[in-house]
Amino acid sequence: MSITKPAIPKGTRDFSPTQFARRAYIFDTIKKVFRTYGFMPIETPAMELLTTLTGKYGNEGDKLIFKILNSGDYLADVNQDDYTQKNTVRLIPQLCEKALRYDLTVPFARYVVQHFNEITFPFRRYQIQPVWRADRPQKGRYREFYQCDADVIGSPSLISEAELLKMTGAIFELLGVDIIIKLNNRKILAGIAEVSGIGEHLTDFTVALDKLDKIGWEKVREEMLQKNMSETAIAHIEKLVALSSETGDFLEAVASFVATSETGRKGIEETRHILALAKHLGLKAPCEFDVTLARGLNYYTGAIIEVKAANTEMGSICGGGRYDDLTGIFGMKDISGVGISFGADRIYDVLEMKNLFPENITAFSQVLIANLGQNEVLYALPLLNLLREKGIAAEIYPDESKMKKQMAYADKNGIPFVVIAGSTEIAEGLFTLKNMNSGEQKQCTKEDIVNILLTQ
Amino acid sequence: MSITKPAIPKGTRDFSPTQFARRAYIFDTIKKVFRTYGFMPIETPAMELLTTLTGKYGNEGDKLIFKILNSGDYLADVNQDDYTQKNTVRLIPQLCEKALRYDLTVPFARYVVQHFNEITFPFRRYQIQPVWRADRPQKGRYREFYQCDADVIGSPSLISEAELLKMTGAIFELLGVDIIIKLNNRKILAGIAEVSGIGEHLTDFTVALDKLDKIGWEKVREEMLQKNMSETAIAHIEKLVALSSETGDFLEAVASFVATSETGRKGIEETRHILALAKHLGLKAPCEFDVTLARGLNYYTGAIIEVKAANTEMGSICGGGRYDDLTGIFGMKDISGVGISFGADRIYDVLEMKNLFPENITAFSQVLIANLGQNEVLYALPLLNLLREKGIAAEIYPDESKMKKQMAYADKNGIPFVVIAGSTEIAEGLFTLKNMNSGEQKQCTKEDIVNILLTQ
Repeated sequence: MSITKPAIPKGTRDFSPTQFARRAYIFDTIKKVFRTYGFMPIETPAMELLTTLTGKYGNEGDKLIFKILNSGDYLADVNQDDYTQKNTVRLIPQLCEKALRYDLTVPFARYVVQHFNEITFPFRRYQIQPVWRADRPQKGRYREFYQCDADVIGSPSLISEAELLKMTGAIFELLGVDIIIKLNNRKILAGIAEVSGIGEHLTDFTVALDKLDKIGWEKVREEMLQKNMSETAIAHIEKLVALSSETGDFLEAVASFVATSETGRKGIEETRHILALAKHLGLKAPCEFDVTLARGLNYYTGAIIEVKAANTEMGSICGGGRYDDLTGIFGMKDISGVGISFGADRIYDVLEMKNLFPENITAFSQVLIANLGQNEVLYALPLLNLLREKGIAAEIYPDESKMKKQMAYADKNGIPFVVIAGSTEIAEGLFTLKNMNSGEQKQCTKEDIVNILLTQ
Repeated sequence: MSITKPAIPKGTRDFSPTQFARRAYIFDTIKKVFRTYGFMPIETPAMELLTTLTGKYGNEGDKLIFKILNSGDYLADVNQDDYTQKNTVRLIPQLCEKALRYDLTVPFARYVVQHFNEITFPFRRYQIQPVWRADRPQKGRYREFYQCDADVIGSPSLISEAELLKMTGAIFELLGVDIIIKLNNRKILAGIAEVSGIGEHLTDFTVALDKLDKIGWEKVREEMLQKNMSETAIAHIEKLVALSSETGDFLEAVASFVATSETGRKGIEETRHILALAKHLGLKAPCEFDVTLARGLNYYTGAIIEVKAANTEMGSICGGGRYDDLTGIFGMKDISGVGISFGADRIYDVLEMKNLFPENITAFSQVLIANLGQNEVLYALPLLNLLREKGIAAEIYPDESKMKKQMAYADKNGIPFVVIAGSTEIAEGLFTLKNMNSGEQKQCTKEDIVNILLTQ
């Protein structure tokens, strides 16, 4: 074996015990709330068939899917012309039958169709798993990251949208993060396009409008012109954008704006109803209607939801919406669903930035038994066993090292108590318990130690 | 988008909510015990650099590693001769820079070397993550499966071996599985080879001996002959094998057998010491010395551990051992470690076969609020919110469907209570709570319902 200098692929990460514990705190909080909202867990394989994923994320997305080279003689069946011409695009499906999951949504749609007969609809599922994207790595963007998704599929009811809003509020309340929820509706966007005479440009229009926050109206305007929307239409939309910065009830203003579009009126009505239901569910977080919210995703058909942490520059930490034909790509039409996805990595960054991680989550062992020699170890092992049986995380220093080294180990690992048992303690049938924070030491029986540690 | 018939790659699995909950029960039990034993969690990326993995699992293992095709123009830099000759072996490292983790041991060794300066040794780490192998799928063998590993690295102390034995006992006790632990020592195997005059055949000898249980002595003998071990040596070993089926203290018998080998004596001494320490730690599970245990793994240098479920035909459900040079492959010599790995999939099969899964782990929502219409929903939403705030998993049926359909939904999802609130209940400010098991119904206030559900 040759010696390999250790490294990991760019855009991926190792997680140390402290990072792991902090991440687990986020996942556990999300999971706990998902469960109280009646969502049930599923898991899908890391590898999907390449055919399942291809064509679902646009051309750019397809390039970012990690493909897995076939095992064995992977060149046996390649088309010789493609091979000779080094046609990398045409060769991919011949070289790779499998690929890594790119998101949780497409695998979920695949799951629903494949397991249709086992599922009782409406199906409330959650899924917390990593996804992989060959994106250019940069701050806050990784090639392996977790998504935490909850969806209700098989019901058109707007109660689900309201529940997702309230659930989002509950999760961030537990995490201590102040949020602002932004709400829009695809039907309102369609209504605006319709009344502005650019109904056929809906996608380009929403993609451009989505950038308003980032690039400003002038650039959005340019993009719309580039995409062949008329000056008249754009002037019409500009009026709406101007409205959005005025005070007052913006939803009502937009309601007038789209009043002549049936689709637009439907979108307004849905939004009003969702907000009313969320209020009955006790939603406390601020929830604003934002007509510029489009999330660039073509599969949304109704509500669009986005969540930002208040008072930060961070992008969205959570988002979702209503889709009416997610399973259509797998041949099953007209199953309406609504879902939301939490970005664990960005939430981590917010908690870190705002110093919101509870301290006790990174505590591992509660007590270290010092190693004073072979006989002392034999004397202490039954205490070690008792502590663990009582559910107290405990360990013994495995080597008979200098006491200074053992104490440094406890200190570096944040272990708050050390038990010392030498010949004096053995003679008395006792143990010395040292509090590493106060430095205080006292003689204890086994039971004393258990009681002290259980009441910490 | 074309319509894709939904399927997943062979050897991979979807997990339904029930399967997920049962698997989580296993992981949570293992994790809980790992933590009380002072092990700290880490995670490593699913993808490692191919160079990190290649050459660590033997030639056969290398073939079973899933390689990830490079992104972008993956043919740009391939060697033209290799390409023209379709040299699949030489092309792999040119096409694939990354690969999927094959086990948790090599990534852990890589982690230890890469993060050496951040780690306080001895390092007690656990890691519960999936691994991927391009093995031929068959019953109980998957291409994606979880490993649950705990290791102590940076100490030669045999206390760690004893702790791992006791920890194994504690985990299977919690899971309700009767086990038999088998213990051997690489040094004893080396001693046997030495005193039999086949010291230079140690690997072939242990690989052959490892198969004794499966294929019987005659076949093992044949394999040894094939590998050029002498008739005299094999006759010598046969005496030992015969001994193993006799009653009495087999460890002492082997002690005499290897008495002239210093390494052999060391192995015997280590084994005695480990068993004595485990006894002091209160190990209750039967732990037998088994000289045929080799686990076919070349990196073990001391104790070898294997665990089987009692009274089943199932193979090993857990195994591990002492290694003295795991990090040597990454240029860091002489770091001794000992570890154990639990196979979640086989443990799942044992629990299922023996009907050992607790019933309550697959309970999701505790209560469904029936949907009787828009006003009724508005009346019930505050109750729904209250239940969830109290930590009770609750949901509302999103659609105003027939009561029969709503009841069937509760029934199929195993939801034990249904709340009904129609005009009568609204007039009285109450709710009807129906127990789905007994069929009993009663009028309740919100607080009654919370109390009833919290005391279930």
